[in-house]
Amino acid sequence: MSTTTHAPRGLEGVVATTSKICYIDGERGVLAYRGIDIHELADNSTFEETCYLLWFGRLPSRAELRNLHERLAEERKLDGSIYHRLQLVPKHALPMDVLRTMVSTLSFFDPEEKSNDREANLHKSIRLTSQIAMIVAAYDRIRKGLEVVEPDRSLSHAANFLLMLTGKHPSQTAERALDIALILHADHELNASTFAARVTAATLSDMHSAITSAIGALKGPLHGGANEAVFHILEAIDASGADPVDYVKGMLAQKKKIPGFGHRVYHTEDPRATHLRVMSRDLGNSSGQAKWFEYSRRIEEFVKNDKKLNANVDFYSASTYHTLGIDVDLFTPIFAVSRISGWTAHVMEQLEDNRLIRPRADYIGPEYPNHYVPMDQR
Amino acid sequence: MSTTTHAPRGLEGVVATTSKICYIDGERGVLAYRGIDIHELADNSTFEETCYLLWFGRLPSRAELRNLHERLAEERKLDGSIYHRLQLVPKHALPMDVLRTMVSTLSFFDPEEKSNDREANLHKSIRLTSQIAMIVAAYDRIRKGLEVVEPDRSLSHAANFLLMLTGKHPSQTAERALDIALILHADHELNASTFAARVTAATLSDMHSAITSAIGALKGPLHGGANEAVFHILEAIDASGADPVDYVKGMLAQKKKIPGFGHRVYHTEDPRATHLRVMSRDLGNSSGQAKWFEYSRRIEEFVKNDKKLNANVDFYSASTYHTLGIDVDLFTPIFAVSRISGWTAHVMEQLEDNRLIRPRADYIGPEYPNHYVPMDQR
Repeated sequence: MSTTTHAPRGLEGVVATTSKICYIDGERGVLAYRGIDIHELADNSTFEETCYLLWFGRLPSRAELRNLHERLAEERKLDGSIYHRLQLVPKHALPMDVLRTMVSTLSFFDPEEKSNDREANLHKSIRLTSQIAMIVAAYDRIRKGLEVVEPDRSLSHAANFLLMLTGKHPSQTAERALDIALILHADHELNASTFAARVTAATLSDMHSAITSAIGALKGPLHGGANEAVFHILEAIDASGADPVDYVKGMLAQKKKIPGFGHRVYHTEDPRATHLRVMSRDLGNSSGQAKWFEYSRRIEEFVKNDKKLNANVDFYSASTYHTLGIDVDLFTPIFAVSRISGWTAHVMEQLEDNRLIRPRADYIGPEYPNHYVPMDQR
Repeated sequence: MSTTTHAPRGLEGVVATTSKICYIDGERGVLAYRGIDIHELADNSTFEETCYLLWFGRLPSRAELRNLHERLAEERKLDGSIYHRLQLVPKHALPMDVLRTMVSTLSFFDPEEKSNDREANLHKSIRLTSQIAMIVAAYDRIRKGLEVVEPDRSLSHAANFLLMLTGKHPSQTAERALDIALILHADHELNASTFAARVTAATLSDMHSAITSAIGALKGPLHGGANEAVFHILEAIDASGADPVDYVKGMLAQKKKIPGFGHRVYHTEDPRATHLRVMSRDLGNSSGQAKWFEYSRRIEEFVKNDKKLNANVDFYSASTYHTLGIDVDLFTPIFAVSRISGWTAHVMEQLEDNRLIRPRADYIGPEYPNHYVPMDQR
């Protein structure tokens, strides 16, 4: 007889695998990549260096980091037919649907499409990191009827993305703000999209399949989609002139959940929120758009006192991204621009010591045998 | 403190959810949809009726079944730009990559793209069931430089698929064989692709995201890809003139796994193999291609005696599909043509009582805190 164990709903608290990538202590509010605290990385690292750390398990030497910069910059290119396909997308399409579709399409053009070894997957990780940023920026230009901006291979990943998105070289403040946001969102252990990527990869399917799964999962409002939901609330408050606390009280009275609060893993402050709060405030002050931070701050104070819920990574990323001039429906795609680094690291780790991920269900349907009844006897 | 429990590798034997859809008894070799044994369904039902059973939880009345036939037939249509996009696919692309990409693309054109309620998802289930069959058939025609065949709305799902694939109306034997194969592959509880679909759906993402994830997972050789691997062995035996048993012994001597044998859940005969074995034999005899069944039978006998492993669903589907005139790289896409019925049923069930699926990992990487070292001190 095979034995089965009943897991809590949503696999809450179930350790599904070992991993060397991401350390989380939900009680103390600790997040670390390869053991290095997220606060130290946010203060000192860059997104490119964080990619190296996630993919190789340690910080790079100067030469290794330079090489990765060069490789990422070289891969700032898309097959011409990708632009054509972006032109074909109906204007009402959701950016996450577009990103999911284009990443799936990229498999056709990947020079190592049929290889699934570590070397090929490392190349795919680099390619997809550059390509996802380009697709998000290019699609936003195309849907607005603007010219696609050519990548600048001398720029950092964050600066090149902002250039391709806005058509202008970003300020140092904006570049660094996005760079830190990309570091903070890069990985988070077995979050739902990373888990979807690992479930897909564990059938020995390929990197593009795994990342396509991850993007589909990230889209959901219980995951990456939450940052967009947060901004819709800030917008509604701004448009109606309502007091932010009154507005949120109204939502609670209607039994609505307040997006951007609470986290399955953290039972104290989400360490990413600590940084994003400061960033939201500083960007708001320096750009003369302090109101978004102010609305957010008041909501956070109320929800924390009244509901004992902490702000999570999504809450202050909303006002941060808006102040950087990014459209609300790109907030989740930008999450993907960062998280591709962690997704790919997890896919490579899964394949190092793979086992098919295939749980069981507890059958509670019509009792077996529930016989087939011929049509004329129904 | 939150509690964690350590699960076996690959979540083997872990009950991740309750489900009313599929009953499996791995010890007795029982598979049942909504409590009805797969043998009774294979002997009496049709793919369309099985779809109804999976989606609604019971067998349909005559009027309900007629209505579903009509709805499936009406949805035999693809946006013109889908054909254009299929033309754009490079000829070397893998059919599963094409199918994954096109299903993702279909979200742009779905009239209920932004709705995720039961009614909309039922409509999407019907649409995707018709569309996936059309895409697989149309892509095969396009890559061969043949005209796409118009759907015939008077035909069954199986017959229309074979018509669109081959350009000829199928024999009754071929239609019924494919129909039974579609019934047998329609659902299998929390197999990896269905689990990927549920993980994605549980973020409250959408049906197209969930099904795109499932297709990506099905592609892997540890899952749907296994039936293609089986046929490559039969082909190699045929081309080399080797004795089938000697060939398999040679593989085992090289420590290779024999695809199509063993199953995580069944510890006795996979009940689907029972039907596919008969189908493979009968189709082989009636088409004068008995050799594929004979190779298979000899391999099965040897592996069962020598390795104590049973043939699974993939083993005889290989010779069955080949005898039906289907190209080997379409075997896994045809698995999707059937499994879409189960995937969609599981997505709808997941959403009835949803909870984010988010397990934990056991961190075994560099010890925390592993401090950030400035570049010039590395």
